[in-house]
Amino acid sequence: MFDLKPIGKVASPLASLADAPRQADEGAPAAWLVFEPDMLEGLRDLKVGDEVVVVTWLDRARRDVLSVRPRGDASRPPEGVFSTRAPHRPNPIGLHHTTVLAIDGVRVQVTSLEALDGTPVIDLKPALAADVAQR
Amino acid sequence: MFDLKPIGKVASPLASLADAPRQADEGAPAAWLVFEPDMLEGLRDLKVGDEVVVVTWLDRARRDVLSVRPRGDASRPPEGVFSTRAPHRPNPIGLHHTTVLAIDGVRVQVTSLEALDGTPVIDLKPALAADVAQR
Repeated sequence: MFDLKPIGKVASPLASLADAPRQADEGAPAAWLVFEPDMLEGLRDLKVGDEVVVVTWLDRARRDVLSVRPRGDASRPPEGVFSTRAPHRPNPIGLHHTTVLAIDGVRVQVTSLEALDGTPVIDLKPALAADVAQR
Repeated sequence: MFDLKPIGKVASPLASLADAPRQADEGAPAAWLVFEPDMLEGLRDLKVGDEVVVVTWLDRARRDVLSVRPRGDASRPPEGVFSTRAPHRPNPIGLHHTTVLAIDGVRVQVTSLEALDGTPVIDLKPALAADVAQR
């Protein structure tokens, strides 16, 4: 086991699972990432327009699930979770490719984010050209 | 704090930090992901040729660092870690875009992986078209 330390939280109009879109390109709203005050040094080179990967801990997901029905559709057969982006998985890590819209101290606004209000943020990384080149 | 549970380990010829390339496109070798036996159900729909994001816990990284010199170059000014892909960061999560080369039960071989032998694997997800479309 490893200890994961939240470094911030999502502030979003998405309040419940019923509000959340399945993927970011299905209408997720812009959201603020509110980092802990002691993370400011790590954020100082972030710029508006940066393409980033927000890494979250999907704290309302189930961790005891290894098969899921895609998109919750009962008519489809269950799939192994590691072939899906379902939040329910042994370590409920969310990856969100977004663009920085605004920065105000430790508050960073990003484009469409399919994570609920209050979701812990655990990392932020620049998106790399290499991420795309390998596809 | 959240408990992260390793679901497998990297088996790679990269044995030490001195051997590791800075990014996957700089010559990282293929590697095997050796999952825990109880993860088999979650892997059952994985196929050779799938483009996946391997999520690792970079267990040999430092967690008390918020600024790093890019590529370890002492002539460059330090940068905030959240604008870099340095392993050293509050939660040392590694993201690796790779392609599945072979599958043998809970052993999954993937293309170039810039992670050391023994690095814990914490998640595996399909790479999404949306990951690219947003760039």
